[in-house]
Amino acid sequence: MRNIKLTIEYDGSNYVGWQIQENGISIQEEMEGAIHRVTGEDITLIGSGRTDSGVHAMGQVANFKTSSTIPANRFKFAINNNLPGDIVILRSEEVPMHFHSRYDAIGKRYRYMIYNSRTPTALYRNLLYHVSYDLNYDEMQEAVDFFKGTHDFTSFMVARNYVETAVRTITDISLDVNGGMICLIIEGNGFLYNMVRIIAGTIVDIGRGKLNAADIPDIIDSKHRKAAGHTAPSQGLYLERVYYPK
Amino acid sequence: MRNIKLTIEYDGSNYVGWQIQENGISIQEEMEGAIHRVTGEDITLIGSGRTDSGVHAMGQVANFKTSSTIPANRFKFAINNNLPGDIVILRSEEVPMHFHSRYDAIGKRYRYMIYNSRTPTALYRNLLYHVSYDLNYDEMQEAVDFFKGTHDFTSFMVARNYVETAVRTITDISLDVNGGMICLIIEGNGFLYNMVRIIAGTIVDIGRGKLNAADIPDIIDSKHRKAAGHTAPSQGLYLERVYYPK
Repeated sequence: MRNIKLTIEYDGSNYVGWQIQENGISIQEEMEGAIHRVTGEDITLIGSGRTDSGVHAMGQVANFKTSSTIPANRFKFAINNNLPGDIVILRSEEVPMHFHSRYDAIGKRYRYMIYNSRTPTALYRNLLYHVSYDLNYDEMQEAVDFFKGTHDFTSFMVARNYVETAVRTITDISLDVNGGMICLIIEGNGFLYNMVRIIAGTIVDIGRGKLNAADIPDIIDSKHRKAAGHTAPSQGLYLERVYYPK
Repeated sequence: MRNIKLTIEYDGSNYVGWQIQENGISIQEEMEGAIHRVTGEDITLIGSGRTDSGVHAMGQVANFKTSSTIPANRFKFAINNNLPGDIVILRSEEVPMHFHSRYDAIGKRYRYMIYNSRTPTALYRNLLYHVSYDLNYDEMQEAVDFFKGTHDFTSFMVARNYVETAVRTITDISLDVNGGMICLIIEGNGFLYNMVRIIAGTIVDIGRGKLNAADIPDIIDSKHRKAAGHTAPSQGLYLERVYYPK
């Protein structure tokens, strides 16, 4: 048996999300089907984590065990030939048998894309969050730094979600503004459910003047979801990279 | 009666093209429906020209006559509210009654987007032509200049198409290479059917080494479609701008 690690790009628009569910086609299901057509095996594909319906990936990581003798770097081409165009394997490689995409992940980088313009975009409508209100970019820029570091992010997770602790560390966060295109990049050791989307929505609310950048420490301290801003929609979110120990 | 000019962005992926046809939904049909819902009128929307199935626009122009009293710049918002997300009106303005989007057009600018990479892209698959072969960018760059000026472009049009003359003037053409992203911009006083896609395909064939840049004058002189390269696919093509007399 061998353990194969895949790095995957996908457009989540037409899927119920990464994980197999009853109510529609998932990316995991499409991929397991494609791997079956290549190897003849019924494998379980382990992803680094779920992504929600409409969320994209530039570098999701997953692994599976196989008895196939296909060279590791050829899996990419073979599986891509059996996938729809909105899922593409960027890299396939053999890893030690003990490698586990989810348990071994030590960090992730997400990207959240906002398009600020009076008029929406037709061409990139599924790849951006369109905000038509005027936004104060300086205030948004100022807000970003307050998230950095280790905090209890209870205010930035879906309230019904149970976790042992909501303490997470954001190792890097930046906001890149280029015309009306705003790119929020967040890197951290772990993320709560909807955490990046709630941070993005809160930063947009700060840009609109509904909240102030200086409020963020209080919002964090309150440990209450209602203190933070809205949840930005799924189509602006990208899982960009998953980190593993060297 | 008033004459309203619209500037339109669209993602052509899900349409049979601009013009109304039997075999599917066209952009013109969607727009006439949306205008009907806004004005109650059955108007005919005159486009600057057709775009094929899968072809996009960043600045298609169209006009229609209406008795509606809606302020000209409000049409944009009212019609957008009645359109699917893959068609967006960027601008609406009142123009003289004699203005005709097609007859008055004096030039157009097209953009053709090529993505050169071993691996395709999932996120932008409907917005680019993915070429996985190695391309010689210098040779492609050299090819571009041969197209400039006034030529008989018979070699660069669909053979079955009847036109009075295939003489057209390309006023500007450039190739911008940025990593694996290649953007071909062509501006001219008029274009034959599939002309931009055949020029783009020929330039890709030159990049692959199937043709040489220095062959282009002979290809033009031959006045034969078979002398030129392949027709690049529709999803890489964008109608960027339509020019009218000042």
